[in-house]
Amino acid sequence: MRLAYRGAPFHGWQCQPGAVTVQAVIEAALSTVIRKNTKIVGAGRTDTGVNARMMVAHFDTDEPLRDPSRLVRQLNALVGKDIAIEDIYEVEAGKHARFDATSRTYHYYAVTCKSPFFYPLSWKAPEGLDFAKMNEAAELLLQTSDFTSFAKLHTDVKTNICHVTKARWEQIAPDAWVFVITADRFLRNMVRAVVGTLVEVGRGKMTVEDFGRVIAKRNRCAAGTSMPGHALYLWEVTY
Amino acid sequence: MRLAYRGAPFHGWQCQPGAVTVQAVIEAALSTVIRKNTKIVGAGRTDTGVNARMMVAHFDTDEPLRDPSRLVRQLNALVGKDIAIEDIYEVEAGKHARFDATSRTYHYYAVTCKSPFFYPLSWKAPEGLDFAKMNEAAELLLQTSDFTSFAKLHTDVKTNICHVTKARWEQIAPDAWVFVITADRFLRNMVRAVVGTLVEVGRGKMTVEDFGRVIAKRNRCAAGTSMPGHALYLWEVTY
Repeated sequence: MRLAYRGAPFHGWQCQPGAVTVQAVIEAALSTVIRKNTKIVGAGRTDTGVNARMMVAHFDTDEPLRDPSRLVRQLNALVGKDIAIEDIYEVEAGKHARFDATSRTYHYYAVTCKSPFFYPLSWKAPEGLDFAKMNEAAELLLQTSDFTSFAKLHTDVKTNICHVTKARWEQIAPDAWVFVITADRFLRNMVRAVVGTLVEVGRGKMTVEDFGRVIAKRNRCAAGTSMPGHALYLWEVTY
Repeated sequence: MRLAYRGAPFHGWQCQPGAVTVQAVIEAALSTVIRKNTKIVGAGRTDTGVNARMMVAHFDTDEPLRDPSRLVRQLNALVGKDIAIEDIYEVEAGKHARFDATSRTYHYYAVTCKSPFFYPLSWKAPEGLDFAKMNEAAELLLQTSDFTSFAKLHTDVKTNICHVTKARWEQIAPDAWVFVITADRFLRNMVRAVVGTLVEVGRGKMTVEDFGRVIAKRNRCAAGTSMPGHALYLWEVTY
């Protein structure tokens, strides 16, 4: 299934006891509609407050998918306003939403003016951020493979190696910018730590060379603070 | 001053006892900053929940306006996230934000798919609305001068005559439409009643001819129900 969600009302994607998560809401709806307890597997895990314009998830069922658009409507009626199930389609047995994904793209939105309409959906950037300098620093990410400096400590992943194929701030309106980053995989908290460190460069508190040294240190404590999650969007997953 | 606001947190523009209104919040901030009780006059009055991308207001003061951008910053620090003061500039004595306005434009946003990000800012339209038919009906508004059928009952205005110069649904994305309406003046509740009646046409419950008959009746009870305010934006005021 392909879906979108607003992150603010949820404690992230992944099921956890005593918390409302996107996965838990969808599993409850799906289990109700197809009358069988069913788990779903997402292409990734988004943290508390993080949005998804496009998430992909799979589930296993013995029943053939006879009327996908009816199932979409039934699920949408149960999952609330903050989740939109957009499409459900059958795939070959053995296909996997997470392991078969070849790239993920995230967007981080920054608005440099006061905006009554977009503040819940974007980060209020200070005036005078140097986006050109941030883009110089962002280019270093394309030559990096070990992202330990931007990885959350004490997680259970086996490697911190990622291949970033795009990392760039783009101006989308006179007062609005988006940071677009694409990689084969992302570590937990990685985009928010990368953006937080780029912002240090944009503020002039760190040079582009400093940014390169942060990467080389392979130490999370060298990087800047993590950015708030409400401005981050899982934008696309490709297979 | 030129400003914008999100309508959801407010009981409309106009001051009223015991309610948080946009005018009251700005007057409190302005009176604090310039250290004198000061009233503001807006170009129009928006109802509870209605947004303004651009509102214009004036105020009288004996002090010359020495540092307008500083005043803008001071006010923005006091009025909260849901109001943005964008500009303040001196005008000739006698200029009036309401009486001198020559046209107002409103936007009404309709989204035809489930949208976790835009539902607080737009109306969830049913599938299959006939926008071409709605535009046929909307053209009749350009030949109308008496808008009694779309006026709130029991208000204190002296005339229901308005001159509408634009009234058209425009598609802005595969699943998103906006109704743009411009007139020299608007009656209270008028845009929401017009859109509500157009939607009856779009749903096939009323023909274009029926819509013409609603206008001719000059009776509010003939028109459709009023649309929700959260999708309505005062978009522009011209002088």
